[in-house]
Order: sequence, then structure tokens, then C-alpha cells
Amino acid sequence: MAYYVGIDLGGTNIKAGVVDSEGKLLNKLSIKTRAERTMEEIIHDMGTLAMDTIKDLGLEVKDIEAIGIGSPGTPDNKEGLLVYSSNLPFNNAPMRKLIREVIDLPVYIDNDANCAAMAEAVAGAAKGAADSVTITLGTGVGAGVIANGRIYSGFNQAGSEFGHTVLVSGGVQCGCGRKGCFEQYASASALARMTKEAAEANPDSLLNDLYKEEGEWNARIAFVAMRQGDQVAKDVVEMYTDYLADGLANAINTFMPEVLVVGGGVCNEGDPLLIPMREKTMSRPYFGPGVKKTRIELAQMGNDAGIVGAAMMGKSCVDDGKNGK
Amino acid sequence: MAYYVGIDLGGTNIKAGVVDSEGKLLNKLSIKTRAERTMEEIIHDMGTLAMDTIKDLGLEVKDIEAIGIGSPGTPDNKEGLLVYSSNLPFNNAPMRKLIREVIDLPVYIDNDANCAAMAEAVAGAAKGAADSVTITLGTGVGAGVIANGRIYSGFNQAGSEFGHTVLVSGGVQCGCGRKGCFEQYASASALARMTKEAAEANPDSLLNDLYKEEGEWNARIAFVAMRQGDQVAKDVVEMYTDYLADGLANAINTFMPEVLVVGGGVCNEGDPLLIPMREKTMSRPYFGPGVKKTRIELAQMGNDAGIVGAAMMGKSCVDDGKNGK
Repeated sequence: MAYYVGIDLGGTNIKAGVVDSEGKLLNKLSIKTRAERTMEEIIHDMGTLAMDTIKDLGLEVKDIEAIGIGSPGTPDNKEGLLVYSSNLPFNNAPMRKLIREVIDLPVYIDNDANCAAMAEAVAGAAKGAADSVTITLGTGVGAGVIANGRIYSGFNQAGSEFGHTVLVSGGVQCGCGRKGCFEQYASASALARMTKEAAEANPDSLLNDLYKEEGEWNARIAFVAMRQGDQVAKDVVEMYTDYLADGLANAINTFMPEVLVVGGGVCNEGDPLLIPMREKTMSRPYFGPGVKKTRIELAQMGNDAGIVGAAMMGKSCVDDGKNGK
Repeated sequence: MAYYVGIDLGGTNIKAGVVDSEGKLLNKLSIKTRAERTMEEIIHDMGTLAMDTIKDLGLEVKDIEAIGIGSPGTPDNKEGLLVYSSNLPFNNAPMRKLIREVIDLPVYIDNDANCAAMAEAVAGAAKGAADSVTITLGTGVGAGVIANGRIYSGFNQAGSEFGHTVLVSGGVQCGCGRKGCFEQYASASALARMTKEAAEANPDSLLNDLYKEEGEWNARIAFVAMRQGDQVAKDVVEMYTDYLADGLANAINTFMPEVLVVGGGVCNEGDPLLIPMREKTMSRPYFGPGVKKTRIELAQMGNDAGIVGAAMMGKSCVDDGKNGK
């Protein structure tokens, strides 16, 4: 069995672990990112953490095939750089070079959403499918595309930014500069916004009481109120799942994946989200007669998706003979 | 030099030609499809036409590596079937088997929009780019995606139906059943509809005079009237290019291609379309700092795209060792 180290670089924590060639996570270590530090300090710590995960299992560097790194932002896996990242002090950061000063292994870099999709494809909800798309509903809407077992990220490695496709022309202003992006209608933040707007328009709705208890507008309030019979909340969930299904159907028509994986905290709501999401989405795409249909599944890899996906991204680069030195 | 036969199957004509390995079309023959005939008769004629193109050049069957077929509808290239086609009498048609009864060569099948994209990638506007997307503005909006030199069509070979992604939630009814598809805002038919609506709302507009001359609402009228100084026509073109740019920017964010190729009759309008289309589109996508940007180019392959693309699709299948027998 061959082993790979996966590193999940986040704005708050750096997580790393050793993963076997079938996507099984063997251990996991974590340190604080402390993003206020210099790029060199952070990357040095990433290399040290990778080394610690290897030693932790009683393995040696020679037992490991490669290190894969999943990072927010845009990578340049060919040159071994992190071109930019909005939340970290990286600007054309020579990540491969600096990691390799700590640990002499091939190093590969990709976007964190792409790595999450790779984790689902190798060991999660899309296991066994050559073509899958993973959409993550969080603060934004992340998307990762796996085509024929490989991450699809376009010529500049910045794809897929499917969350930044306009679904509602002239709609809600998005942080990317456009109006009406899918992200503004399907993210957890979008659901919180819809909840707030509906509550303000309906002062008698239970939504307002729940807001006082929670102290913030979040993506749970509408579901909690709906379960307690609040009609305004029911309408909010109806509206949210309509938009969500429209965007997911767009993703299906665009990529025609075998499996469309949906993840993110909102999915913890279970059937009240899942049933309408599945039914509405599958009523929309354009499948001709006799054409095989996409399956919709929930993400399974949870918090380990980043590490496992980064490691399996590294494996795919090794398998393809890509230079990681 | 290796040679390939490309067949472009359409509802009206079947065209075929011999193409060299660099995408150069060496000859071209055409017959009527006569779609009212049986599937067997039509496919038999396709095989005979392929044979004729070979003999026409003084070549023999052994000089040809493969036959590639571009067809409307959904192919099953693994099984050699045309699963369905909306305008032709094909329902799981055993195209490979029947063509091979006429001519003993490997036979590969793909969608016509995908073949058009392949032609642009090998010998047209995206030559030299590994990742490109070709969008064709016609009666509908066709899309073909080339990823790492290969057609991307998803697990069911029905992708990419990018024309059927909703851009205007709740908008104009589309033939696919959804409302607000990109196709309803960027096709030539969409421009004709917008022109008609604007003319009816503005009885004094020159658009109405041009309609009487042309005898139909088409995609040219707005451009002709705009060039003659008609403000209503100018507004129509402004609206059309806004929607077009929104959809093209969606395609860029989704696929991050090196080249986005735009084709179809509307492109014959030249600069009055191209300049706003390029400028508006490139102001919208989500490129991070330092990230390489997509180029937008006009399609170059014209009426030969179908034949050349089908032949080069066949070549890519041969190169990948796919079974065509």
C-alpha cells in the first residue's frame, strides 16, 4: 500500500494527515494557521506538520509518495505556487520550494473546493463514479469538478467558480462584482438573508422569536420555525430550495455528472432540505429520452474532505507523472 | 500523414470529407438526409458517402484510421449507438454496426456541438489551447467543451447543455421546460424575439419598416436599424449583448477555458456585436489577482466545423485506444 500526506490549509487551522491509496485517513494533526504571520513561517509549519504526521504513524519519508496541499485561492500546480489567496498572505508563494526545504517529497497544490470534490470521488458519495461534481453550500458556494477521475480546473487552475454564475439576472449584489450569482441564492448566508427579509416583512412570524434566541440570522432559523408550523418559514424554505434546485439543475446540464454531491452545514437539516432539493432538482435538467440520469447524493467526507482530497489529488498527480519537485 | 473521415449528420444534409491529422479538410461530399426514411437507409448512405470521399481522393480504406460522426442528439460512443435525436428517426440506433457493414473501419460518434468545439480546438480559433469552450449562437445555443484536448461530455455523453442553464430565473419559457435559459436570451431566435417586442412597443421605430422588407423577424434587423441610427434598435442590441455577456461570463467562470470561441450566424455582424460582447464579457468573470485570463475569439471553421470536428474526434478516440469496432 502506498501512502500520501494531505494538508488542508485554512484561514484558522492547518490540518494534515496520512492517507492510503484508497482514500483512508490514517491519522490527523492540526495546528493554528495564525494568518498574521509571514508566508515563509506558515509554509515552514506546514512542512513540519507533514513530517509530524509521518512520524506519528511510525513511518518514514521514504514510505510516502507525495504531499498534496488543498488551499483557498488559485494554485499554480505546474510551478508549485499559490498564485493568490484572499484570506492568507500568499502572493505567488513558492509553496512547493519551501515545503521541500523541510521535507524531500513531491509537492502538489490545488484549490480546497477541488480537493473536497476529489475526496468525495475517491472515498465518499461519488466513489466509483468517473465524473462527479461536488457543490458545497457554506458562506459561499464552492464547486469542484471531477472529470474522468481527475480534477477539472481549466487552463488557469481557477475553475470551477460555478458559485459565481448568474442565476438571477440583475439580482442580489455579489462580492465578485456581478449581480444575481448562484452563491447569493444558495449559500448558507443567502438562506440567512432570505430568513431575515421574510421575518422583517412578517413581524408576527416565529422567525423573529428564534432570531432573539439565536442572536443572529443564520441558516437554521427557517428550518426550526418550519418544523414548528410557521408558514412564513415554510415559504422561505420553499423559495430557497427553488433557487437551489435551479442552480443544481444548471450544474447538471453543464457537466452531466454521474453523481452530483451536495455538502455544507445546511445539509445537516436532513429530509426537510433533501427531499425538496432532490425532487425539484431532478424535475429540471435536460435529459433526452433514454439518456442516463445524474444521481444526487449528500457529501460524506465531512471535516476530513480537505485532507483526504489533498492527498488523493497528490496521488492523481503522481499517477499522471506530473513533476512535483 | 494519417487520414480520418468525418461525417456531419444533419436534418437536411449529410456531409463527409477526408481530414488529415492536423485538421486539414482534403475534400467534401454532400447528400440529402431525407429524414423521412428509415434509420437503416440513412446510415447505409452515410457509410457509402464515407467510402466515396475516400475513393474521390484516390485513397483506399486501409489509408484511413477511423470514421468520426457528429450528430445532433445524444451519442453512446462506447456502445456505438445514437441514443436519441430530436429531428432524426434514431432511437438507440446501432450506428457503428451499420456503418461497419459498409466500410470496415473503427467508427466513433459524438454530438455535433462537441465536434464543432473539437474543430475549433484542433484547427480553428482555439488552436494550441488545451482547454477551450465553443458556444454557437443559432436557433438555440450550442456548447462544446474541450478539456485537455478531449471532448468533455459527462458520464452520459449528453453534456454540455450549457444553453440550458437558467440565467434569468423565472424568465422566458424555454423548449426544455424551464424558464429563463441562456438560450432564450442569447440565441439568434432570442435576438429576433427581442427585436419584435421592441418594434411592437415602438411603432415609429425603423425596425418595423425593416420587418416589412424582410418579411420575418430575424437576428439581422436590429443591427441594420442600429447602423441607420435607430435608437430603439440600439437599445435592443444593448440588451442582447448584456444578456449574452452575462452567459459567456458564466461559461468562463464555470470552465475557465484558455479560449472561449463564439460562433453562429449572429457573429457575421462583426464589430457592432463583437466589440460590446468582448468588453462586456471580460468585465464580468471572477479572475483573482495574477490569474491568467480567458481570450474570446470568433469561430473560424464555418461550415466545415462539423466534418473536421467529427474526424478529429475520431482521431482523439484512436489516440486514446478506444474501441471503435
